[in-house]
Amino acid sequence: MLILGLDPGLGTTGWGLIRADGNRLSHVANGQIRTDASMPLPRRLALLHGAIVEVIRGHQPQGAAVEEVLGNSNAQSTLKLGQARGMALLAAAQAELVVGEYHPSIVKKAVVGTGGAAKEQVQAMVARLLPGVKLTGADAADALAVAITHAHHLASAKAMLRRAG
Amino acid sequence: MLILGLDPGLGTTGWGLIRADGNRLSHVANGQIRTDASMPLPRRLALLHGAIVEVIRGHQPQGAAVEEVLGNSNAQSTLKLGQARGMALLAAAQAELVVGEYHPSIVKKAVVGTGGAAKEQVQAMVARLLPGVKLTGADAADALAVAITHAHHLASAKAMLRRAG
Repeated sequence: MLILGLDPGLGTTGWGLIRADGNRLSHVANGQIRTDASMPLPRRLALLHGAIVEVIRGHQPQGAAVEEVLGNSNAQSTLKLGQARGMALLAAAQAELVVGEYHPSIVKKAVVGTGGAAKEQVQAMVARLLPGVKLTGADAADALAVAITHAHHLASAKAMLRRAG
Repeated sequence: MLILGLDPGLGTTGWGLIRADGNRLSHVANGQIRTDASMPLPRRLALLHGAIVEVIRGHQPQGAAVEEVLGNSNAQSTLKLGQARGMALLAAAQAELVVGEYHPSIVKKAVVGTGGAAKEQVQAMVARLLPGVKLTGADAADALAVAITHAHHLASAKAMLRRAG
């Protein structure tokens, strides 16, 4: 199963594709979409949306996952993040992908083993879990981490269903 | 010139279309798009985006306007608003419409004459400025108010350009 992880941001959106065969994971592709802060906001959103649509069209994933966002005390940056995140969720919904949403601490726990892990630990573990991966950047690494989390959750959900008969 | 005003929200998005011939304004249509809170967020965003795209396709406006948003201290509601607002900005950008953004106090000043006007005053003035209008609701009225603001700004920009030769 091909899983797309997304780490949305207006300036940089990370994306990462992994293949999950039961518990075996492998890297497929990762990248970062940048939009120019000097462009009008609607244009930036359209570019971001179009680029995510292209990633989905090009790779045809069967599942998608995005980190849950808590927002912060800076309302303007939370608003920007919401607008960018909307593009990721929309592109996934338009491709009829079900989107898993995972709290940041769940992602850290799934990848590193502890909910309080540092960003660098997440990146190091993503590289270890996906041998041969070349990370485009920190946002692409975060996107792969969410995809890995989604794969783990699907695998354990399947195992539970099997045990339940 | 046909102008589309939008008042985006995840639960209810208001829209309003006016025709502006110089300083003469007339009402064309208004409505509200609702999404069901029990649906998954990506689905709600896709419905919202699709409905705005349909309004634009059906009426072919030449301009669009949205209220500037400040966000508030509730990060979760600011994030939702950002996601919904992203759908409005994206739909406008995809139709190659330039989007005017106006601070709420500018909208109130343009419609009522004072930046501190109450919501009810805005609705009453929208009804007076667009004779015969039947308001679908408060969000549709706000959308028409933004469209009126945009029309005023375009008219005064034109007048300035004329004076400048």
